[in-house]
Amino acid sequence: MNGRYEQLRALAGEIWDIEKASGLLSWDEETGMPPGGAHARAEQKATLQRLAHERWISDELAELLEELRQFEAEHDHDSDEASLVRVMRHDHEKARRVPVELHAEIVRAGSLGYQAWLEARAREDFSVLLPHLERNLELRRRYVECFGPQDDPYDPLLDDYEPGMKTSDVDPVFEQLKAALVPMIAAVKEAEPVDDSCLRGYFPLDAQRRFSVWVMEHWGYDPATWRLDGTVHPFATAFATTDIRLTTRFQPDHLGGVIACLHEFGHGIYERQVSPTLERTPLASGVSAAMHESQSRMWENLVGRSLATWRVFYPKLQEELPQFADVPLTTFHRAINKVQPSLVRTEADEVTYNLHVILRYEIERELLSGTLALADLPDAFNAKMRDYLGLDPPDLVRGVLQDAHWSDLGFGYFPTYSLGNVISVQIWERAQNDLGDLEEQFERGEFGALRDWLGEHVHRFGRKFTAAETVQRTAGGPIDPAPYVAYLERKLRDVFGAAVGAS
Amino acid sequence: MNGRYEQLRALAGEIWDIEKASGLLSWDEETGMPPGGAHARAEQKATLQRLAHERWISDELAELLEELRQFEAEHDHDSDEASLVRVMRHDHEKARRVPVELHAEIVRAGSLGYQAWLEARAREDFSVLLPHLERNLELRRRYVECFGPQDDPYDPLLDDYEPGMKTSDVDPVFEQLKAALVPMIAAVKEAEPVDDSCLRGYFPLDAQRRFSVWVMEHWGYDPATWRLDGTVHPFATAFATTDIRLTTRFQPDHLGGVIACLHEFGHGIYERQVSPTLERTPLASGVSAAMHESQSRMWENLVGRSLATWRVFYPKLQEELPQFADVPLTTFHRAINKVQPSLVRTEADEVTYNLHVILRYEIERELLSGTLALADLPDAFNAKMRDYLGLDPPDLVRGVLQDAHWSDLGFGYFPTYSLGNVISVQIWERAQNDLGDLEEQFERGEFGALRDWLGEHVHRFGRKFTAAETVQRTAGGPIDPAPYVAYLERKLRDVFGAAVGAS
Repeated sequence: MNGRYEQLRALAGEIWDIEKASGLLSWDEETGMPPGGAHARAEQKATLQRLAHERWISDELAELLEELRQFEAEHDHDSDEASLVRVMRHDHEKARRVPVELHAEIVRAGSLGYQAWLEARAREDFSVLLPHLERNLELRRRYVECFGPQDDPYDPLLDDYEPGMKTSDVDPVFEQLKAALVPMIAAVKEAEPVDDSCLRGYFPLDAQRRFSVWVMEHWGYDPATWRLDGTVHPFATAFATTDIRLTTRFQPDHLGGVIACLHEFGHGIYERQVSPTLERTPLASGVSAAMHESQSRMWENLVGRSLATWRVFYPKLQEELPQFADVPLTTFHRAINKVQPSLVRTEADEVTYNLHVILRYEIERELLSGTLALADLPDAFNAKMRDYLGLDPPDLVRGVLQDAHWSDLGFGYFPTYSLGNVISVQIWERAQNDLGDLEEQFERGEFGALRDWLGEHVHRFGRKFTAAETVQRTAGGPIDPAPYVAYLERKLRDVFGAAVGAS
Repeated sequence: MNGRYEQLRALAGEIWDIEKASGLLSWDEETGMPPGGAHARAEQKATLQRLAHERWISDELAELLEELRQFEAEHDHDSDEASLVRVMRHDHEKARRVPVELHAEIVRAGSLGYQAWLEARAREDFSVLLPHLERNLELRRRYVECFGPQDDPYDPLLDDYEPGMKTSDVDPVFEQLKAALVPMIAAVKEAEPVDDSCLRGYFPLDAQRRFSVWVMEHWGYDPATWRLDGTVHPFATAFATTDIRLTTRFQPDHLGGVIACLHEFGHGIYERQVSPTLERTPLASGVSAAMHESQSRMWENLVGRSLATWRVFYPKLQEELPQFADVPLTTFHRAINKVQPSLVRTEADEVTYNLHVILRYEIERELLSGTLALADLPDAFNAKMRDYLGLDPPDLVRGVLQDAHWSDLGFGYFPTYSLGNVISVQIWERAQNDLGDLEEQFERGEFGALRDWLGEHVHRFGRKFTAAETVQRTAGGPIDPAPYVAYLERKLRDVFGAAVGAS
């Protein structure tokens, strides 16, 4: 039987190598490829993705998994061995449900849709995108049908990003969140606005980079296993647990590229601390989009926007960017924690961000179920922006055309952003229970205890358990927005004073 | 029948995509990968190379090639169609000759041998490398046996780099070359040494990079399709005809990194100007190592060390590197054309370089045939250094351990360096016949006519013809060292004056 397991491990390794090579093709495309290489690169990626997909749906894998049922039962659920069989069976069965032709059509439609989205933005014309969205929605409905009768047609889409999670798990979380956030934001709009003028100016790119790497080195970035490159839309990826790639976009007139580094570090450290025993298997990665986001948001927000952290980092920032020499730390800290409703999701603050997400989640569910017609999408989007954030998008680019997610068939992804926020505070509270006062540690420049705790309690498991199981294990219960809401209330009190925080 | 050809084209495309992805894995490893990624990267490369090799030796390819015999005969020899069938048959038959196990053993031994070479250098101890060389030589002999009886056992090794070329083609070329060069170098040693002290100093890396890119932009480098990165050992590669990657190593105390750019540009422009109709086939690449080297050496030496060229570029160099402000152009030009026997091949000048190559070629043939025992290799190496260059290597690192080529089984590669030099001048003379006075064009900053001529007469064919056929077509005859020797004599006369040039 052991021989069969070795065969499974070998096949897993082969798939992994192909997928990682494909990942490098994408990373290179986003960081440095001359634009002329785009056409050939699309072919190269398509070929490697096809080779991986063929292996995922192969009879060889089906037979191995069948023959390993006894082996799996004989091994502890948490063991690497049982976990590998279990997770590969899940991935295999999911991949087999979708006919190869439909899979190919979805990939192609995503590529065409994305191009149409770019064009629709350039021409500020929703009708350019509309036929692609019609097509995408139809393909996604056919995709959902592959999985048989569902409690909610949204379930298989959510499952692509949050294995094992149901729409019925998300709904109550978002209802609670919305109920808490809408009045919170209304109170913020009544309060004296925070002055964040210190965050505008001229910030040399070299200094921003030096500072960002210096900060991340305090957290665990190490040039022996990490690398930071420039890109348009920041992301993190990994080609091994010992080869972590962060990307960011430093711009001369604001510090968004520095904040992006803090965020991407959280993704990177998750991949970095997966157990080496899982290397070259599909387990060697973060378990879900929301769990990954919980880690990036933790380092960006809970660590990266804390006053204690900046007591350590601010003198270095002042040294690198002399504009801050005369700005008191508290002024800077309030500025990076400013809360104010704004139009663009990716530029939103910690509090309002979630309403951007929730409105998109609600809309994509209505689109899928057919209760909202695509032709009415722009109006529905604007109506929710008014209801939740009190804002009227002045144009399509700052309205319904701001995100690419629907043009490339990414239905089901949006909720993971806010679920990540929620989970981040649940995990944070457990860490604090175990480790004592984290803020006090940060003030002494000590971030290692938190990092190591996350490695021990979250990261090392990789994809062994489902997202829900991982939350249960690390947070001691199911997803619960209460700690996150309480955290945001404390933050508002810190930044705006008692009037807002008490609301 | 057309359907079969389409199948061949599709298989060629798939192999190409895999090989290019593998190429990117290597490029990334050499340019920016964090060192921690090395182990996983070796696995990824091995997997992709195996996937490509499996396709090269597959029954599917064998059957397609068999079924396409009639198709091939019905198409013109020079057509893309007949060429693709012909070249894929050559590659397939060659790959099939070698048992999969031997292939894998050679790959593994190369990796182990390279590590041993690094260690032998660090410890300055030939005995560390000796057992690996024994093993490598045995594997190479077994490899040669796969191809049946040969006129010379060296032929199959040479054929790996120069398809269709025989050892008996190389011998007379090198005999003539050696006969001309040995007295030439003896005369140089009698002459007043050239003062190249202006080439030493402090040269900021940014300025070197700006200058190098500026120069290459005059030649045809374009950021839409090219990219320049840092590395340890400069090389060029391509992931499409529209995605050319050059690498170099700028160092603060000399201009070797700038010269490397000029050299790598020649490799890059070859790949850049392959016909787009050959894209995603094994024809979309330079035809052989020597043909590639002929292009890199042409841009490095014939264009890049010419006085006419520097009349255009030198003012910019003086602007970027003020150290040259007071150095006359003629002094700089003589310095970059200095000829003087030296110990290390990779740092050798244009004239003496070839003797470094020839002595290695002679030695590796003796090793293969068994007339030289590996234990005697260091002494044999030193003896030839004395005979040909009049120098005594003071240690192993500047002696027999200076090159990695034998440690990683690269027997057969060395001669291509000098064959490239020889071919470069043959092609150059044809270009000059067609285009008139090239130097006069360079003085006006015009390099486009030469570049386009090379595209038309050499580059666009890719691998359609053998190296020998390509030389015949472009130079109008077989490989002939006479034009190269005459060129070197002219150069020596220019640099040293009549006494040396006339020898």
